[in-house]
Amino acid sequence: MPLPVELDRLRVVLVGTRNPLNLGAAARAMSNFGFLRIRVVNPYEVAFREARSAMGAAPLLANAEEYASVADAVADCGLVVGTTSIQHRDLQHPIHRLDDGATRICRQMASTPVALLFGSEKFGLSNDELSHCHWLLNIPTRDEHVSMNLGQAVAVTLYELAKDNKTIEYAAELQPATAGDVERLSLSLLEALSLSGYSTAATVAATEEKVRRLVRRMNLRGRDAELWLGMLRQILWKLRSD
Amino acid sequence: MPLPVELDRLRVVLVGTRNPLNLGAAARAMSNFGFLRIRVVNPYEVAFREARSAMGAAPLLANAEEYASVADAVADCGLVVGTTSIQHRDLQHPIHRLDDGATRICRQMASTPVALLFGSEKFGLSNDELSHCHWLLNIPTRDEHVSMNLGQAVAVTLYELAKDNKTIEYAAELQPATAGDVERLSLSLLEALSLSGYSTAATVAATEEKVRRLVRRMNLRGRDAELWLGMLRQILWKLRSD
Repeated sequence: MPLPVELDRLRVVLVGTRNPLNLGAAARAMSNFGFLRIRVVNPYEVAFREARSAMGAAPLLANAEEYASVADAVADCGLVVGTTSIQHRDLQHPIHRLDDGATRICRQMASTPVALLFGSEKFGLSNDELSHCHWLLNIPTRDEHVSMNLGQAVAVTLYELAKDNKTIEYAAELQPATAGDVERLSLSLLEALSLSGYSTAATVAATEEKVRRLVRRMNLRGRDAELWLGMLRQILWKLRSD
Repeated sequence: MPLPVELDRLRVVLVGTRNPLNLGAAARAMSNFGFLRIRVVNPYEVAFREARSAMGAAPLLANAEEYASVADAVADCGLVVGTTSIQHRDLQHPIHRLDDGATRICRQMASTPVALLFGSEKFGLSNDELSHCHWLLNIPTRDEHVSMNLGQAVAVTLYELAKDNKTIEYAAELQPATAGDVERLSLSLLEALSLSGYSTAATVAATEEKVRRLVRRMNLRGRDAELWLGMLRQILWKLRSD
């Protein structure tokens, strides 16, 4: 199977993985399906060392990029997708089924790096980690047993992505905003809310999560993110100057 | 999710499996995707005992049927399919790619039990074992790394088989924002820009058009429009009060 250049645009981001076997299994599936860029956020150190020395996974894990936070790990990506076993979250995020979601991801990979997040074996992705995601991806499973093994979830997801890889060229103006710009926008908005008294010391954490999700639901293009950042910069200047 | 009766017609047959973790992983994926009938042929005894007592896989493995030969394990099946990582065997058997093969299997399951064979981790299915198969199924992988982990191969195969049978109810997207709210939001933002000095008398008309388009590109849901309006109201109050 020839490898389209676009596969290189996917970053598989493993967050808080605990079990070295799962790290190894994830890396093996990535290698099987041709996605070679792995990022790890706060892995259990011992697990990570063990997995790195495991058979087969070695080349891929040796090049793994380590990050201290999800924000850093996704900063260069124009689309950030979280995986979840839960089929009906409380509507904080749009959820797409794997087959449909894979098509969306492939379309975006034509123009931007895409981050695909997998949470820890025990807890999945936390609300804070999810707040960096544009939308969620769900593998349809049986209601009685929704929770998949991490390595198997990675394998199934990448199989569908590799299979589906019909990429479409998008015009430059449709380039999505990078996660870095989206995060800068969230922080600017949060500062404006704090300066204006919308959020108080007591509500600041809840507001932060709410704003992060709100801004990601905008699905901003790169040019629009710049426009927003410029407007907020001016509003902040005025709010601060008084 | 309702389980179509047909899923019950698949027998997942694990031949000569050596590693208890792989037996457990295969059973877990079967449970995730709703295929509950597992058969084992000559498993390593110790591995089988260990796997049976593993978390999560217990109910399914407790009902595993043990056979001494592939012939016995597939005797009641109208279609026997072997899995292989090799994409070009020497044409002893027809090979179908997973997506196409899954459709054929589902079609047959409407009328007969179907056996799906997975070989041992190290050697796959032997020629003798393959001789019981009508055709072979292949998961398309990268030429440089075709060999998949057993548990992951089972997961990917069953995902594809279950996929077409499945309808999951996804939460309906929230109501889109009304044009009235979108316009109120545009006007609030324009006022904030004017108060902060972003737009001047000379640029106000151009800014107005730019902001109207920007806000409409957000494709807001009703709830998000309310959230934005609340935040802007507070920022405006602060900008006006100075």
